[in-house]
Amino acid sequence: MYIYPKKYDCIVIGGGHAGCEAALICARLKLNTLLITISVDTIGAMSCNPAIGGLAKGHLVKEVDIFGGEMARNIDETGLQFKILNKSKGPAVWSSRAQADMPAYRLRMKHTLEHQDYLDVKQANVEEIVIEDGKIKGVITHIGNEFLCDALIIATGTFLKGKIFIGLNEFHAGRAWEPPADKLSESLAKAGLVIGRLKTGTTPRLDGRTIDFDALEPQMGDDEPIPFSFKTKNFNPPNYPCYLTYTNTKTHEVIRENLDKSPLYSGMIHGIGTRYCPSIEDKVVKFPDRERHQIFLEPQDANSNEIYADGLNTSLDYEVQVKYLRTIKGLEKVEIIRPGYAIEYDFVNPIQLKHTLETKKIRGLFLAGQINGTSGYEEAAAQGMVAGINAAMYLLEKPPFILARDEAYTGVMIDDLVTKGVKEPYRIFTSRAEYRLLLREDNTHLRLAEKSYEYGLIDKVHYEEIQEHIKKVNEAINILKTTYAMPSIDFNKRLESINTKPIKTKVSLSKILARPEINYSLLQTIVPDLPLLNKIQMQQTEIEIKYEGYINLQKQQIEKFKKLESIVIPEDFDYDKVAGLSAEIRTRLKEIMPKTLGQAMRIPGMTPVAIQIISIFIHKKHVQSKPA
Amino acid sequence: MYIYPKKYDCIVIGGGHAGCEAALICARLKLNTLLITISVDTIGAMSCNPAIGGLAKGHLVKEVDIFGGEMARNIDETGLQFKILNKSKGPAVWSSRAQADMPAYRLRMKHTLEHQDYLDVKQANVEEIVIEDGKIKGVITHIGNEFLCDALIIATGTFLKGKIFIGLNEFHAGRAWEPPADKLSESLAKAGLVIGRLKTGTTPRLDGRTIDFDALEPQMGDDEPIPFSFKTKNFNPPNYPCYLTYTNTKTHEVIRENLDKSPLYSGMIHGIGTRYCPSIEDKVVKFPDRERHQIFLEPQDANSNEIYADGLNTSLDYEVQVKYLRTIKGLEKVEIIRPGYAIEYDFVNPIQLKHTLETKKIRGLFLAGQINGTSGYEEAAAQGMVAGINAAMYLLEKPPFILARDEAYTGVMIDDLVTKGVKEPYRIFTSRAEYRLLLREDNTHLRLAEKSYEYGLIDKVHYEEIQEHIKKVNEAINILKTTYAMPSIDFNKRLESINTKPIKTKVSLSKILARPEINYSLLQTIVPDLPLLNKIQMQQTEIEIKYEGYINLQKQQIEKFKKLESIVIPEDFDYDKVAGLSAEIRTRLKEIMPKTLGQAMRIPGMTPVAIQIISIFIHKKHVQSKPA
Repeated sequence: MYIYPKKYDCIVIGGGHAGCEAALICARLKLNTLLITISVDTIGAMSCNPAIGGLAKGHLVKEVDIFGGEMARNIDETGLQFKILNKSKGPAVWSSRAQADMPAYRLRMKHTLEHQDYLDVKQANVEEIVIEDGKIKGVITHIGNEFLCDALIIATGTFLKGKIFIGLNEFHAGRAWEPPADKLSESLAKAGLVIGRLKTGTTPRLDGRTIDFDALEPQMGDDEPIPFSFKTKNFNPPNYPCYLTYTNTKTHEVIRENLDKSPLYSGMIHGIGTRYCPSIEDKVVKFPDRERHQIFLEPQDANSNEIYADGLNTSLDYEVQVKYLRTIKGLEKVEIIRPGYAIEYDFVNPIQLKHTLETKKIRGLFLAGQINGTSGYEEAAAQGMVAGINAAMYLLEKPPFILARDEAYTGVMIDDLVTKGVKEPYRIFTSRAEYRLLLREDNTHLRLAEKSYEYGLIDKVHYEEIQEHIKKVNEAINILKTTYAMPSIDFNKRLESINTKPIKTKVSLSKILARPEINYSLLQTIVPDLPLLNKIQMQQTEIEIKYEGYINLQKQQIEKFKKLESIVIPEDFDYDKVAGLSAEIRTRLKEIMPKTLGQAMRIPGMTPVAIQIISIFIHKKHVQSKPA
Repeated sequence: MYIYPKKYDCIVIGGGHAGCEAALICARLKLNTLLITISVDTIGAMSCNPAIGGLAKGHLVKEVDIFGGEMARNIDETGLQFKILNKSKGPAVWSSRAQADMPAYRLRMKHTLEHQDYLDVKQANVEEIVIEDGKIKGVITHIGNEFLCDALIIATGTFLKGKIFIGLNEFHAGRAWEPPADKLSESLAKAGLVIGRLKTGTTPRLDGRTIDFDALEPQMGDDEPIPFSFKTKNFNPPNYPCYLTYTNTKTHEVIRENLDKSPLYSGMIHGIGTRYCPSIEDKVVKFPDRERHQIFLEPQDANSNEIYADGLNTSLDYEVQVKYLRTIKGLEKVEIIRPGYAIEYDFVNPIQLKHTLETKKIRGLFLAGQINGTSGYEEAAAQGMVAGINAAMYLLEKPPFILARDEAYTGVMIDDLVTKGVKEPYRIFTSRAEYRLLLREDNTHLRLAEKSYEYGLIDKVHYEEIQEHIKKVNEAINILKTTYAMPSIDFNKRLESINTKPIKTKVSLSKILARPEINYSLLQTIVPDLPLLNKIQMQQTEIEIKYEGYINLQKQQIEKFKKLESIVIPEDFDYDKVAGLSAEIRTRLKEIMPKTLGQAMRIPGMTPVAIQIISIFIHKKHVQSKPA
């Protein structure tokens, strides 16, 4: 066994969206880091859809950005189209989404890693993790080399015992035609982690030349695109079209007729699939009344003819894929470049993890991304960021980095994962965030800059820039709230000029801005003294004023939430000694070992009575353990 | 079995340098073509060194260019440095070489394929070829789909039963960490082809940040770079440096001490390695007196830190790679990104092929590239071109496209392959070309335009442009030969002004140009009436005049060669009926079934007596078979 002479502080296995963020953040915190990947050429590869962001996912990207990650910058530099989704709904659910140039995205990420100080990149297949006295010690590669480290982050995506299905055919692969990582999974099991099996899938890639785009509705990005990263200035990305089409009853007929050729319905696939990104055959079976489903045809890169068929993820037989595709408007003569497929892979149920993403069993071993049962690039990146920061904190012997549910979508996701575990691939949604009006995308960097600065994840210049921004917004809000308008004829005329009702009594400017038809720049036309703000500052000022009531309500809820979260359950808490708990709840509690009463409450199946019992017991113990 | 409804004229298996050219040429000849590759993302990938061209290889690239291929255009658009090698030697051996931006090269090739009319690209793993009545009928993929075709070109590189070695470790892979194609090889054997085993290797890829470039000698490209393609205008490529360093006695000591950890020297590798691109351990063992070997450190892409260590191809143990690298100047602290490795793979000995690269056994089945036992991107591309054109000619029922040894390096290579067969990976050299003074790089498109136009591989505009160029050169030569200078005082003074001897008698201007110290533009300063020529036209005029004697000699040799080549051996020639041939020679002849007496002569081990016997026999038969 050759032991590599350079000892690393942290090793990251996997060069996907989780691995890249984890490695970059550790290195940016000046820890000697090594990223090991099966193929250096696929670092930052987008295995499925050519897009970053989307509902709630955009939030994660912005959180990764403020905590020193790369995904936001990477898509800003290589995106083909940018759009804010849900603009017709409330600001809590506005989400950024961008089409990506897949090879450009991948290469920029690879180059970023290669140029990062304190970071080495090596191509190898890790087959074994080395543990000593319950602590991680290193990894062993397929050619028998040991690399030593004090912390290890595993971010292997779908590669652990990956198996691909197309119709009734199956073959071993970690992604598309790439080799899987079989032995590592066995090593994790040997280390005592419980391994499960999940399934996901992807769509056929189509030859754009064989699509009748003229028959379809183009979907453009925003005319005034907003970047993901607060660091991106002078943003002027291209605006490539996507195209919208639909399945139809004929499509569904072809699929229904051929379900016997589906590995999903013939029982070949044992892994549990994602409910939130169902295959087209799932949609057809589960929603028999729906006459059509939306399909977005998206470009894969600026110069390519390859088109991603968003909405058509499938594991149906190749023949069936060809047939049903050709029933769809615009795709009558389509040629497939790469067929859709399902992939089944090993995962580690995240109830085996702490909120830091460290495994409870092995000190210094962190897991991030799809290995934890999630799906999505953004979910992976956010976990990579958290695992990276926490590996660093662990190494530096500093307090862990934990994002609470009221702080960030990342906090919501990780709390969900480690508290509720995963039965099917987990995806983030705005509905998962209780306090989503506070956790908006637009104020991500404002909310989290303080914490980021505290952990050394943002430099002073950027931090001060953000503080300046916050100051401006707060000043504006303050002025709006403390400046009153009188119901003078002159002022009411001015109100009329901007098509809003006159006032009858003295009212604050904030009350006027709160009117649905008014926005900051409109108000500025009749109150020219208002502070000058940029577009984003205006937007934030408007939201704070217009949604003040809801925001205050959420703040109150957060206070309550924080009370429960502040009641810490001791790490060595012995549930066996707590009388009155049902056997089932006791088992769950022992499995999860919640850190706070709040977390205990969120365990699926938990009852208020059980919480009360535990609460009393903690209190008693606390009193008992006080020095006499 | 699903039979794909679209029937193709030609299918190409493999998206490497051979496959891309083959597919593009078939499609450009308007035949419905399908390229099947294991991964669409690795189309045009450079598996080994980041360079195109080089000694004799540059010639091949230019030949591929004139016959409608893409390699030349592709490197012109994505090269990082261009250089003419061997400029200090005679023009016969001048060769173009360029450093490539590997991902840019790959992506441009992928995009070219994707936009080519008549060409479909599909991702699949072909496991079986389908033959009916001795003719190719289609292929079957790993997911049980049959694609029909009338011609099939197999260009699978090192993927057939690929096995990688690093030290005493081995694992199955077709390239780096990519999966091999095992079943296709078995299908070829079942079809009656004799399969052999070869070996090649690649070098470690280094982290540029850990190299002390300041201590090394930079190697720049030419200040006035010349493009590969005659179609490239306004050529203004970048000029990235390479760096030169050397192994030393310490390096060799480390290698010698660790040969027991070499798969090559421990007998693990059964495939025969390439003599012409030996591993560093081979060099150390075979040339024990050499105190150092040259290493070129070459960039892999414009933005990457990955550095290719040209000259260090190795299958030594990872530990040994680290150790010997760090003995080299500039590499004292080097980190490896990807280790070097050896790869062993199946090949088809090309004596089983015709000059068209069609297999003798199966009609419509063509093989191109490394599967035929060659090494090198350029060798592969040239074969892809020949296989592509011939598949097209076969389908169109037109005469085959055969390049003779006196026509092109491609002709030399293919004649070598099908006549002599392959015992070790074949590489092109200028020394393999008997008539190399005629087969220069600079005049490639002039020599071959006629033939290219005849086969429909070049459009009229380009053809006429070349004819115009030829006309200009010929006019200039004619003027130089028919214009005489008188030994006047005035003219001799002018000669003196350009530092050359005076003349004593009336001489042609060509005689003056033939002087070593004179070139066309210099002569023009004293004979201003000479036709205006561009740089390349001047160069060609100079070469034709200066090397006239040699050129005429080669032309005479070619005449002789052509005589033997014109004596066709009938396809059904029965060597068993020819008395006087030794058993060994008879076996060889029956194996190769040479098409002409010329080819028969080039079979290794052939004797002049045997040739004479065959010659007489052909003559007799010919006389006998004449109508009475």
